[in-house]
Amino acid sequence: MTAPTDDLIAQMPFARLLGIELVAVEPERVQARMTVRQDLCTSPAICHGGALMAFADSLGAVATSLNLRGGAGTTTIESKTNFFAPAPVGSVVLGECTPLHRGRRTMVWQTRLTNDAGRLLVLVTQTQMVLEAPAS
Amino acid sequence: MTAPTDDLIAQMPFARLLGIELVAVEPERVQARMTVRQDLCTSPAICHGGALMAFADSLGAVATSLNLRGGAGTTTIESKTNFFAPAPVGSVVLGECTPLHRGRRTMVWQTRLTNDAGRLLVLVTQTQMVLEAPAS
Amino acid sequence: MTAPTDDLIAQMPFARLLGIELVAVEPERVQARMTVRQDLCTSPAICHGGALMAFADSLGAVATSLNLRGGAGTTTIESKTNFFAPAPVGSVVLGECTPLHRGRRTMVWQTRLTNDAGRLLVLVTQTQMVLEAPAS
Amino acid sequence: MTAPTDDLIAQMPFARLLGIELVAVEPERVQARMTVRQDLCTSPAICHGGALMAFADSLGAVATSLNLRGGAGTTTIESKTNFFAPAPVGSVVLGECTPLHRGRRTMVWQTRLTNDAGRLLVLVTQTQMVLEAPAS
Repeated sequence: MTAPTDDLIAQMPFARLLGIELVAVEPERVQARMTVRQDLCTSPAICHGGALMAFADSLGAVATSLNLRGGAGTTTIESKTNFFAPAPVGSVVLGECTPLHRGRRTMVWQTRLTNDAGRLLVLVTQTQMVLEAPAS
Repeated sequence: MTAPTDDLIAQMPFARLLGIELVAVEPERVQARMTVRQDLCTSPAICHGGALMAFADSLGAVATSLNLRGGAGTTTIESKTNFFAPAPVGSVVLGECTPLHRGRRTMVWQTRLTNDAGRLLVLVTQTQMVLEAPAS
Repeated sequence: MTAPTDDLIAQMPFARLLGIELVAVEPERVQARMTVRQDLCTSPAICHGGALMAFADSLGAVATSLNLRGGAGTTTIESKTNFFAPAPVGSVVLGECTPLHRGRRTMVWQTRLTNDAGRLLVLVTQTQMVLEAPAS
Repeated sequence: MTAPTDDLIAQMPFARLLGIELVAVEPERVQARMTVRQDLCTSPAICHGGALMAFADSLGAVATSLNLRGGAGTTTIESKTNFFAPAPVGSVVLGECTPLHRGRRTMVWQTRLTNDAGRLLVLVTQTQMVLEAPAS
């Protein structure tokens, strides 16, 4: 059983600001979409790389939270992005986040961002630290 | 001589959305600040890692643009972030971007994000591709 | 048509020193193996992370060379590694390198290192610059 | 007080194979040198990127070990390298490793590799996990 989808984004005001919509949420795969609004762009009118990294980072955080044991928290400790192709204003970017490693101390996620033709735009690999709840 | 500061941010709508303010702009050093607004946060109320990566990415883009020869453009091809400490809501994050390499084909920039006590919060290293203007 | 396998490793003395053996060589997939000799280890007796990174880097270089047009060269400009599990002395590490991007200016390769049980040990993502041959 | 220099390299057979010599060893700075032997090269005769990454990784491991509390161990969980300039066969590469973060759970080190003219050849940033000794 996982947390309700709406709550996961609602907990991250910046993810709401970006307009991220979760599509499918499972412990082994999180899918979402983001429309490239004009205010997410750089110049020329393509999505700012930072908005794409923030989209992916949000998916990694959601995915980690679905795999935490009760009371534990998480924080991103490092993230690596490769950019392959731009996302023009008005287009929709699809994100899919899957695990590379789910350990007791760290989890590592890889997020692929693609356009609606299936072309890989961005690849993000990020490490999440698992923060154990204090012993009671 | 460098481009007017206001123009550099105005050209990036997403940098405006984040509220990035340039402080000092030279070809060898770009400094800026960003206030951690509530809508840039995750939960708990600390700055979303994606907003911090986007802040740094914007500085690397500005810094590169100051070093391009007439007509050339640039795009980020890869970026690596390490996160060390959180930036609470309401705090100000300072960014300083300096070059590791300024070549004909690529430039590599390192951006340090610190809080107002000087503590290192985030380190970003990014590679910019230089896109030569077409021969006329 | 691809270059003879033996030549590709013979051209890299350090790959020979590591004992890398190519298994299958195609433009879209390079596979190889490396036995964890005692002199490739750290202490305790598991493969040194640097030897694993060097193994993967060699596969990315071979893969790029198979995709270059006549006269062009290549150099690694950046590389990112995540380590998931150790490779004990005496074990065999399998490497498989596949493309994320094959462009005119850069190629990006991802190499998975696994043990003989198929467990992912290391993931490497690297960017190769394509160095065009001088116009004659 | 720190561990004897010779022991730190002697514990890593692969660091010996590379010919790494420690120059100065303190908890906040580790310096070392490596001569680019022919068998550390690729073709053309410049140091293989993997040998340079392995050199830097070894310094990060030594530096971490100097900062561990009794009984704790360490492992590299991720590493990022940017390459700026080649190291020709016969040249000496100098390495200097300094901390970005020394925490209870992780340490992050940055290693600069330079040539004897002081030019930056390679920059490596790596995260070490601290493995606490089991409670007795």
